[in-house]
Amino acid sequence: MKKHIVLLPGDGIGPEILASSVAILKTIAKKFNHQFTFEEHLIGGAAIDAVNNPLPQETLDAAKKADAILLGAVGGPKWDHNPSELRPERGLLAIRKALDLYANLRPVKGFEKLLHASPLKEDIIKGSDLLIVRELTGGLYFGRPSERRNDGQDVVDTLAYSKAEIERIVKKGFESAQLRRKKLTSVDKANVLESSKLWREVVEEQSQFYPDVEVEHLLVDAAAMHLITHPSHFDVIVTENMFGDILSDEASVLTGSLGMLPSASLAESGVGLYEPAHGSAPDIAGQNIANPIAMILSSAMMLRYSFDLNAEAELIEKAVEACINQGFHTADLQVKNGTKVSTTEMTDAMINFI
Amino acid sequence: MKKHIVLLPGDGIGPEILASSVAILKTIAKKFNHQFTFEEHLIGGAAIDAVNNPLPQETLDAAKKADAILLGAVGGPKWDHNPSELRPERGLLAIRKALDLYANLRPVKGFEKLLHASPLKEDIIKGSDLLIVRELTGGLYFGRPSERRNDGQDVVDTLAYSKAEIERIVKKGFESAQLRRKKLTSVDKANVLESSKLWREVVEEQSQFYPDVEVEHLLVDAAAMHLITHPSHFDVIVTENMFGDILSDEASVLTGSLGMLPSASLAESGVGLYEPAHGSAPDIAGQNIANPIAMILSSAMMLRYSFDLNAEAELIEKAVEACINQGFHTADLQVKNGTKVSTTEMTDAMINFI
Ligand SMILES: CC(C)[C@H](C(=O)O)[C@@H](O)C(=O)O
Ligand SMILES: CC(C)[C@H](C(=O)O)[C@@H](O)C(=O)O
Repeated sequence: MKKHIVLLPGDGIGPEILASSVAILKTIAKKFNHQFTFEEHLIGGAAIDAVNNPLPQETLDAAKKADAILLGAVGGPKWDHNPSELRPERGLLAIRKALDLYANLRPVKGFEKLLHASPLKEDIIKGSDLLIVRELTGGLYFGRPSERRNDGQDVVDTLAYSKAEIERIVKKGFESAQLRRKKLTSVDKANVLESSKLWREVVEEQSQFYPDVEVEHLLVDAAAMHLITHPSHFDVIVTENMFGDILSDEASVLTGSLGMLPSASLAESGVGLYEPAHGSAPDIAGQNIANPIAMILSSAMMLRYSFDLNAEAELIEKAVEACINQGFHTADLQVKNGTKVSTTEMTDAMINFI
Repeated sequence: MKKHIVLLPGDGIGPEILASSVAILKTIAKKFNHQFTFEEHLIGGAAIDAVNNPLPQETLDAAKKADAILLGAVGGPKWDHNPSELRPERGLLAIRKALDLYANLRPVKGFEKLLHASPLKEDIIKGSDLLIVRELTGGLYFGRPSERRNDGQDVVDTLAYSKAEIERIVKKGFESAQLRRKKLTSVDKANVLESSKLWREVVEEQSQFYPDVEVEHLLVDAAAMHLITHPSHFDVIVTENMFGDILSDEASVLTGSLGMLPSASLAESGVGLYEPAHGSAPDIAGQNIANPIAMILSSAMMLRYSFDLNAEAELIEKAVEACINQGFHTADLQVKNGTKVSTTEMTDAMINFI
């Protein structure tokens, strides 16, 4: 198989962990006789520094032609006081919108060997394995008007959705549930928001086409509670953009190893952008100590979702598990009787396994 | 002191726990020579059943004349499929708006003896003692337009704030921090929302008037993570309505005893509505097993915030602590070597202490 992958290293630890992923993908390509070609472009703070634009046209053009995109991370204190248009996050928001990456998939699953690092008690976190399907290109993030009014005395943002936008993400939620334990939790605030009422209607409508999936509705405030008290209750959670932002970050710390969590942002075309759930960690950048696993698992998601290469994806996931079970860990984790390794050592261990 | 208190029992366990509070308040009145008068009115599902309106005019008129309001809880499956205007929550939203109860104060503090019930590991939850100051009458909850468009094909909700609305809640946040450990965390999504940018500006502006308070800004997604990983990091959190709804419910489960958490919703006039942080628990209603403590602590907040009766409030809080330290607990809690008691037995134990 021939695939062209655009690499967006971004800021902080982005370049290091992306380099790890590329090394792994090259190993996979050799082993399975694929041809992966790579093309690197600027995004985020790095792009602001170089060309004063968090998403240069060149990057966008390349991304549009790619079979898939791997993104390291964007952001850092260096750009925190820039005006909005010149902030690294704008690059991320802009590429999501431009490529219509409407479905953000964030799996949260602990590794037995690392669960001791969870902030939750073991009997609570044990057995949790959930997937958050977050709408990524609508809602408060992109609704207009979003502006000051009356000489700056008033301000509005707009939570806007079309029924079609809700339908496609809800379908993605149902389809994701069908591939897993067939349970879908739709999260909204239907007792307050008109948009949530439409959301709930769409979920009800769509549920007839997925009779094998059990559906429940949960208010967002209750969902924020249940994630902590009963994380293993959930299989797939589907929700709108802002609720998904909050709940997926909340969920990401439950297993105690944020550095292990991948994400995929998918378009209807099948193209996807894959990035770790964690941020750019500028404080540890350039020291070869970052945990590359979230990024590596993101590239496994790419193989599965964009290229349909399931055996290859599984092999990467197995390599990760094997390394962890052998006690290898980067500095962000503590493992009793484990072996602390650098970013590149961890990567090499996985390559050896593969 | 003479004070007139409007009682809104509402639904589920509301009436029982409110009765407990009234019994305690009568004991306090006798002991300290105050004159508390009580007047009961309908709200929520009970009001829908009786007069087909979740907030009858009579209730609102009485509430407007009261020195303070005690509310049990509203809601239940019985009314879940009613049209929006005839849902119990509407009564709550309407009374908040009508009385301009803009500041919702939700303290979250564990009891040493009950911390074992926390979903968090003990070393993480230990020492946590935080207060969430949530804006309660603006934002997405009340912004207009909030409607379907284009034949139901589109939907919008509006997140609207005036600068004045932001200022008064931010001030309340600073003032609350001054009365505590002098640390304020302002939560927003300033990397995405225009309203959050204004919010952050107001916090910066106001901070000069509270030089003794240390301020930090945190994005709402990061806040959702830190509440779990570092709950003891926080003193006062101030945030807008929807973020506050989600974060305060998230925070409410951290200590493992939601049945102990009170809340206050305050107007600029000093009038306030006091209610437990938990819901109406219809499944255990009418069995004399509900935990009355969140409601009782809410009435202590009333004494403190609306009547300035600090000694009286403290005595109630001490009574609660004493009963818990003696091992008394209701069915929602498990206490090793404790004594399981009913709602009324718990109340009587406190009255004895007082
Ligand atoms: C960087 C930020 C704009 C972004 C978001 O809020 O979507 C991030 O938090 C995420 O979840 O991917
Ligand atoms: C009942 C509901 C409308 C309400 C809210 O969202 O404000 C409740 O969740 C609360 O937090 O008091």
